[in-house]
Amino acid sequence: MKTISILGSTGSIGRQALDVIATYHGDLQLGFLTTNTNAELLAEQVERYKPYGVALCAPEAYQRFRQISSFDGPVLCGKEGIRAAAAWEGNDIVLSALVGFAGVEPTLAAIERGITVALANKEALVVAGELVMAKARHHNVPLLAVDSEHSAILQCTVGEHPDSIERVVLTASGGPFRNLPLEALEQVTPEQALRHPTWNMGAKITIDSATLMNKGFEVIEAYWLFGLSPEQISVLIHPQSIVHSFVEFTDGSVKAQLGVPDMRLPIHYALTYPSRRPTALPRIQWEQLSRLEFEPPDTTRFPCLKLALDALHEGKSAPVVLNAANEVAVEAFIQRRIRFSDIPAVIAGTLDAIPSVALTSLEIVIDVDRHARHKAIALVSHLQQRR
Amino acid sequence: MKTISILGSTGSIGRQALDVIATYHGDLQLGFLTTNTNAELLAEQVERYKPYGVALCAPEAYQRFRQISSFDGPVLCGKEGIRAAAAWEGNDIVLSALVGFAGVEPTLAAIERGITVALANKEALVVAGELVMAKARHHNVPLLAVDSEHSAILQCTVGEHPDSIERVVLTASGGPFRNLPLEALEQVTPEQALRHPTWNMGAKITIDSATLMNKGFEVIEAYWLFGLSPEQISVLIHPQSIVHSFVEFTDGSVKAQLGVPDMRLPIHYALTYPSRRPTALPRIQWEQLSRLEFEPPDTTRFPCLKLALDALHEGKSAPVVLNAANEVAVEAFIQRRIRFSDIPAVIAGTLDAIPSVALTSLEIVIDVDRHARHKAIALVSHLQQRR
Repeated sequence: MKTISILGSTGSIGRQALDVIATYHGDLQLGFLTTNTNAELLAEQVERYKPYGVALCAPEAYQRFRQISSFDGPVLCGKEGIRAAAAWEGNDIVLSALVGFAGVEPTLAAIERGITVALANKEALVVAGELVMAKARHHNVPLLAVDSEHSAILQCTVGEHPDSIERVVLTASGGPFRNLPLEALEQVTPEQALRHPTWNMGAKITIDSATLMNKGFEVIEAYWLFGLSPEQISVLIHPQSIVHSFVEFTDGSVKAQLGVPDMRLPIHYALTYPSRRPTALPRIQWEQLSRLEFEPPDTTRFPCLKLALDALHEGKSAPVVLNAANEVAVEAFIQRRIRFSDIPAVIAGTLDAIPSVALTSLEIVIDVDRHARHKAIALVSHLQQRR
Repeated sequence: MKTISILGSTGSIGRQALDVIATYHGDLQLGFLTTNTNAELLAEQVERYKPYGVALCAPEAYQRFRQISSFDGPVLCGKEGIRAAAAWEGNDIVLSALVGFAGVEPTLAAIERGITVALANKEALVVAGELVMAKARHHNVPLLAVDSEHSAILQCTVGEHPDSIERVVLTASGGPFRNLPLEALEQVTPEQALRHPTWNMGAKITIDSATLMNKGFEVIEAYWLFGLSPEQISVLIHPQSIVHSFVEFTDGSVKAQLGVPDMRLPIHYALTYPSRRPTALPRIQWEQLSRLEFEPPDTTRFPCLKLALDALHEGKSAPVVLNAANEVAVEAFIQRRIRFSDIPAVIAGTLDAIPSVALTSLEIVIDVDRHARHKAIALVSHLQQRR
């Protein structure tokens, strides 16, 4: 019997992980479940899945949970509570499914305790890849990819020597605006951006998919997870979202991993890696697999992807600035304060304004992040005033 | 330094193997090279690649070789010579690239000497799968697939537990007549059938690709090589010949292996399995990978595939009859004695006429093979007289 804690159990990945664990992992018991603000759903999850403890980041959510739930296990509060849940000594595995920069510190806390991390939080590697990987190596902690693309690379490379990887190609659905002309992209609404053609995901990542920033983040993640150079990673648009990534080997052979677009599959794989366990999850219907299409991404219409690749090339603190400005810009777009096409403008402006520094500690990461957010917020206000 | 002998070095696979070995395998030296009749090319290969010895099956070819070559190593003759080359004690690996039933005995001879076999000869498994696999297990001899489809399955299953395979899907180009209506198939000529759209192969296998019998043989091979049930193996037509096969796992995940249609890739992989070694072999051009298509095979227009699947289901000696009748029918088609659409008719008639028996020894296999050929030859004569 192993114990797993889920950081962000009320989010999209967290809910699907609970489903997978309850259905297929009778040998896993739940440690902590955590949420940022969703006390109601956490109370339901406690009733249904019986974890050892819970943690709620927002103090109001903590109060609310205390009112509506009679749960008698440990109930932690605040950022410190989330970090304590991640680093709890009873954990064998922590699934880090937090959204955004908030995922960085708890992920590091789990690694420092030598706990295996299944990583669904992109930002931990995007903003602190060097620190996270160094700590994971130091504590000999496996980092298991939960993203469908990185899971695909993991699956294609089991049994292969790392040196035999020539390059990887991440696929991208292209999002809801794949075929929209440049002019029309200015006018798209948050509702349109939140309607993803193939994947059912949370709001932030769905907007990031529509801008292709999400794919840029995944390139940065792949860089850290698989120890590749930026030149070894590329992106192809694949509207069907059936092929989740390709790995090309040094002999010229290529492997791909395929599956229906369902996050339960890579979540399940991370929990059984490197072996597999039978599931009744949906299968590819071979009869319907009539056509798979691939095309290079258009960085003129989707400049966020190029901003991310440039930030990876620049290295140092550039990805921190990229991520901070993107979080601010996406939130402003959801709140209708800026246009869809303003998102890359805010990010580019922030990258230009903040000088690049070496990331020698988490404190510096946090400092750069704060500066970049201030700058991005100022740029958002400026854009608003001009309208 | 390891030693490899190539049975059938003057054929398509043999020539490509010599190219691959000379270019990428400085740690392999050549034992025997063998040919059926092509003394001229064998003499050239001896000059260029400096093997330890040679064997020629046809006595005329042996005489001719003696006249034109001053080679001073061992020169063996006849079926016995080919078998001796296969079982030579200096061999570490034997690449069995003979065409047709002639490949069965030498393959068994190598296995009995405990020599690793890279298997490009389909018939050894199609007609004697049970005997070959039993002997390989008994002598603990690895059988390495050289077919692109079986190499794909091998590549997709490295690092995976055999029990986690749910099923495999072999891809087929569909051959030159993929879109030809049933009526037009009657009139196709050997020249048309020999013009394969994607693969550059020998004559027999090219005709087998045009009838889809080749894919039927590969299903039977996969059945033996990977210990699957017939229900776990299916076929999809994939005109681009880029995806060489799929493996679906019990968790719902699917892996595929891709590559340009070039046999040097799977030949090279068989020689480096389970690791890889860098090559300058042609790469997939990702920019050109715009569309991959898959469709179920049409067994009304291509009944040979169904005949093969039925023979696998029936088991016992049915695949021996299938193979013998097919060899006779394909030869008769190449000689313009029967039509393209007569090939499945000859095979079906032979299968109906020969009762199924258990294959308890190679002698029984040889006996059934002979009977089936006689029957198939009689059916070919009958068809000719009716025209």
